[in-house]
Amino acid sequence: MRLAELSERSGVPTATIKFYLREGLLPPGERVNARQSRYEEDHLRRLRLVRALIQVGGMSVATAREVLTVVDDDSRSPHQRFGAAHSLLPPSAGPPGTSARAEGPGSATHGDGAEGEDEGEPGEPGPHERTARESVDALLTQLGWDFSRRLRHHVPAYTSLINAVAALSRLGYPCDIERLLPYARAAAQIAETDTETIAAYDTLSEQVEAAVACTVLYEPVLLSLRRLAQTEESNHRFGEGS
Amino acid sequence: MRLAELSERSGVPTATIKFYLREGLLPPGERVNARQSRYEEDHLRRLRLVRALIQVGGMSVATAREVLTVVDDDSRSPHQRFGAAHSLLPPSAGPPGTSARAEGPGSATHGDGAEGEDEGEPGEPGPHERTARESVDALLTQLGWDFSRRLRHHVPAYTSLINAVAALSRLGYPCDIERLLPYARAAAQIAETDTETIAAYDTLSEQVEAAVACTVLYEPVLLSLRRLAQTEESNHRFGEGS
Repeated sequence: MRLAELSERSGVPTATIKFYLREGLLPPGERVNARQSRYEEDHLRRLRLVRALIQVGGMSVATAREVLTVVDDDSRSPHQRFGAAHSLLPPSAGPPGTSARAEGPGSATHGDGAEGEDEGEPGEPGPHERTARESVDALLTQLGWDFSRRLRHHVPAYTSLINAVAALSRLGYPCDIERLLPYARAAAQIAETDTETIAAYDTLSEQVEAAVACTVLYEPVLLSLRRLAQTEESNHRFGEGS
Repeated sequence: MRLAELSERSGVPTATIKFYLREGLLPPGERVNARQSRYEEDHLRRLRLVRALIQVGGMSVATAREVLTVVDDDSRSPHQRFGAAHSLLPPSAGPPGTSARAEGPGSATHGDGAEGEDEGEPGEPGPHERTARESVDALLTQLGWDFSRRLRHHVPAYTSLINAVAALSRLGYPCDIERLLPYARAAAQIAETDTETIAAYDTLSEQVEAAVACTVLYEPVLLSLRRLAQTEESNHRFGEGS
């Protein structure tokens, strides 16, 4: 297909496609003549992935390029490719303008202005971090998610989960294993659905691509649905009709 | 309790507490003498909420103040207070440096540099937006979430869900009702758990506070768990042991 059709079918403007081509995020098409190239279905698929990473995932061009290099690396196993791509994705759900969700107890980034704060030595886990790590480890054991007892510490989601649980603990909200289990079960169900979607693709490369795209694209779906479900629950409990 | 104890029990540095007091995010304590004030359990609870909104929710001081005004407004029903507070929370899960998840088809913010892009008239819903709205409406009907057929358009999560589904559709990923249902069911389960947590608080004010804090604090927990569940699934499917 021509550039115009690639743009039409992907919904991505031609100027953006040209930008991705120049940046090496999209492989060049087959040259037809001095002014035109031809693009294949593979280009369309790759373009969608690039778009998802940058526009929905909020990734920089440089990070997107790194992710794609990993996705394309046939010398690694699919599990390694998926894991490596995963580890490059931005930490889940940091809202605009804050890195608070990923921060340790001693980080200087608090998002509440340049007020001098001192919360202990950077990088030294406090009691809440230790409790959080114990809770999370107990949870993973109970779930049978022992995928990476050795590798756990290299999985960014493991660290971000501990940080999130530590934030709950520090603020006095419940975060024991009984409270975390329903969340984990819901997450497991969703991951199963994700896997079905991914398995529907034919080749391993397509599957790795789809895995990365699904991770990024369904996050806002999930969080929006949770808020709608909460509104529904609130209406049942407190609403005028109740 | 004294300021030092408030700091100790909340884990929030005294300099930050003083900043919150100056900004009116925390009501003043009872004056004991010229240099000291006494604080109550209510202060501790409020301090935790402020901390959750700003540090985990990434809110500005001004937005946090607005949320608290709504939370404290006894003239409204709890459902209205919860709904109004909800609508002030930042859109769920925009990653740092992008507003892409909340953007319409014609927005100029694309996060991929200052490349001139033109995707149609701003604010005019394209075919993907229309399809997404139909999918979302059908989903809500099927779920029986008819909480706000009239009010739906005032619920930010409704709009952000349509935008997220439209992004999936535009990029060629599945987003039909069958695909969305498992996410919605998981969200409903989680909202039930949230409701139990919230109901455990005694007064309505505490419940509204807890509802707001839970919404913000458990988002990173949920997304981290989803990524761990995906890693576990990937290991099952592709891992060395399989």
